Amino acid sequence: DRPLRVGVIAGDGIGPELTRAAASVMETALRLHGTGIEFVHEDAGADTFRRTGRALTPGALDRIRGYDALLKGPVGDPAVRHPDGTEAGLLGGLLREGLDTYANVRPIRLLPGIRGATRHEAGEIDHVIVRENTEGLYMSRGRGVRNARAASDQLMMTREGVERVAHAAFALARRRGGAPADGVSRVTCVDKSNVLRSFGFFRDIFDEVAEAYPDVEADHMYADAAGYALVAEPSRFDVLVMENLLGDVLSDVGAGTVGGLGMCPSGNIGDTSAYFEPIHGSAPGIAGSDRANPSSQILAGALLLDHAGHTDAARSVEDAVARVLADGTVTITSSGSPDLGTRATAEAVVGALAAPEEGTGPA
Amino acid sequence: DRPLRVGVIAGDGIGPELTRAAASVMETALRLHGTGIEFVHEDAGADTFRRTGRALTPGALDRIRGYDALLKGPVGDPAVRHPDGTEAGLLGGLLREGLDTYANVRPIRLLPGIRGATRHEAGEIDHVIVRENTEGLYMSRGRGVRNARAASDQLMMTREGVERVAHAAFALARRRGGAPADGVSRVTCVDKSNVLRSFGFFRDIFDEVAEAYPDVEADHMYADAAGYALVAEPSRFDVLVMENLLGDVLSDVGAGTVGGLGMCPSGNIGDTSAYFEPIHGSAPGIAGSDRANPSSQILAGALLLDHAGHTDAARSVEDAVARVLADGTVTITSSGSPDLGTRATAEAVVGALAAPEEGTGPA
Ligand SMILES: CC(C)[C@H](C(=O)O)[C@@H](O)C(=O)O
Ligand SMILES: CC(C)[C@H](C(=O)O)[C@@H](O)C(=O)O
Repeated sequence: DRPLRVGVIAGDGIGPELTRAAASVMETALRLHGTGIEFVHEDAGADTFRRTGRALTPGALDRIRGYDALLKGPVGDPAVRHPDGTEAGLLGGLLREGLDTYANVRPIRLLPGIRGATRHEAGEIDHVIVRENTEGLYMSRGRGVRNARAASDQLMMTREGVERVAHAAFALARRRGGAPADGVSRVTCVDKSNVLRSFGFFRDIFDEVAEAYPDVEADHMYADAAGYALVAEPSRFDVLVMENLLGDVLSDVGAGTVGGLGMCPSGNIGDTSAYFEPIHGSAPGIAGSDRANPSSQILAGALLLDHAGHTDAARSVEDAVARVLADGTVTITSSGSPDLGTRATAEAVVGALAAPEEGTGPA
Repeated sequence: DRPLRVGVIAGDGIGPELTRAAASVMETALRLHGTGIEFVHEDAGADTFRRTGRALTPGALDRIRGYDALLKGPVGDPAVRHPDGTEAGLLGGLLREGLDTYANVRPIRLLPGIRGATRHEAGEIDHVIVRENTEGLYMSRGRGVRNARAASDQLMMTREGVERVAHAAFALARRRGGAPADGVSRVTCVDKSNVLRSFGFFRDIFDEVAEAYPDVEADHMYADAAGYALVAEPSRFDVLVMENLLGDVLSDVGAGTVGGLGMCPSGNIGDTSAYFEPIHGSAPGIAGSDRANPSSQILAGALLLDHAGHTDAARSVEDAVARVLADGTVTITSSGSPDLGTRATAEAVVGALAAPEEGTGPA
């Protein structure tokens, strides 16, 4: 195999620690499967904005399109803002629109050894939120209008935009094992079509696309009911698909049920580019202190490997993370930090990769 | 005292059972406090729409303005829709806009004896979501545009709209005892001001209003982070204030943490009118079967009494509900139904009101 070429945006705050941790795990996993990996660093984010007045350097999007995929750490610094008050250096708009990565895939999975905020057990929560990533309310990102007396943003949906993300959701459901509760492959369309016409449009197109997947159950839920069910009965879900803002909020709700944002990776996937990142922010308050949980970033690396066709290596990373948590080698404390620290947690995962048969700590 | 004059919209599905249950409890509570109550029925909702082509009868808004307050059951029937696919007969738009009830007040409180979906205990969850109720994305309710290729709705905020709901939130915080975690009176502004200008407007006006309440802590959280925190660390919250759609979704998330939608009342409060309802829907599937949990409707009745100045009677209803749950007289089963049935649950609450000192069941 030729080596994988992966772009890296290390990010702000805890980003560099996390991407270093993930890179070492990815490298080991691929090497054990007979493939090399080359990382190419891109300078981007809030710090880049502060230094250069732009969050991406010239030519970055073209270079990123040339990599096999991009690993992105969290970016952002609340102190770096545009004159309109929105944060500068967040990259979400630049990358998601620029690379047209329309499907934001957010697995919500409760791993053994992890104590989520709900009363559910490992295995009962295992679903994926597919967040539409290029339109919806975010089409208005930084483009809204305001004066002293009123303000407005616009929620937009297009036929092609809804079709492609619905196809992504159904295709994903075909590759999974169904909902934990009943093993049924199901895509739940989450909307407010009882109130808003744009959501009715979303739902109608979802229903059209569903006809191409008679083997997958098409399900509907209003966004408020889905917010409730994600907390109270998450095992009913397999794949969910929804508008951008709803996906932003409801995936963080899901994160609460599986032990925190530090456990949740995400993929931003388009037809020609893809990048992978944690769903949490850059946590400047704990940057450099070796306290961040690298699991989300490492699991984002696993999503990347899977997307790049290295399915076995991806699975081995997910298994290794699950193993060091399940056997108590690493414990995530109530503050969300791993007791071992960021670096030693990554080393434990690397160790578990190298010794897949044996335990790596107390049984 | 002159008797209280309360309008009643019994509602669709389980609505009539619930409003009957709540009315009997309200009547007893007021009588024990030396006041009478008169209920005046209004014909409204999905069934009214089916019969008459309108969800409200002529003159209803004027009559409602004349009552001391309105008790509303859940309305709606998914089968009754406008040609654009939105549900007809929901009343939310007609009443909230028509009566200008701009503050949708949604207490999220985990009662003793109730098992919420999270690992928290009674006393650890006790906050109020104040949902802006007349603008935001809902200003576009049924007014969005769509053709075969695209659709759009608009999120609008006005200075007056944000000011008045922010004042309502701060005034409410002054009347409460602070957040469970630290006893601090706090209003959390929930927005996506990092991404959208209209939310920046919301946040800026919130900050201006906050200056008039130096005794209350003004706090900020992005909507995704708030969705996470409502599940993972709800005890940090006292009062939250947010845009209409965010409030719709996040209050149902909160309901998941306190034992379900059947435990959550809400008040729609304006300067000259107010109405009180459960946050859940009309559940046509279990209508007439005596299986619905009347707690949300009874607690909505308590909010009504409090709003009408009968604070002691309101407190006695809340205490009676808490008592029959805490002492095991009524158990809410995992399906959300009270083991005693709807009617007997209301009778148990009435009994607890009449015997405030003694237990009403096994200690
Ligand atoms: C940082 C923020 C702009 C971003 C978003 O809202 O999309 C983040 O919350 C996410 O979910 O990736
Ligand atoms: C029934 C529906 C239109 C309504 C809303 O979205 O406001 C309901 O969910 C609520 O929260 O009162």
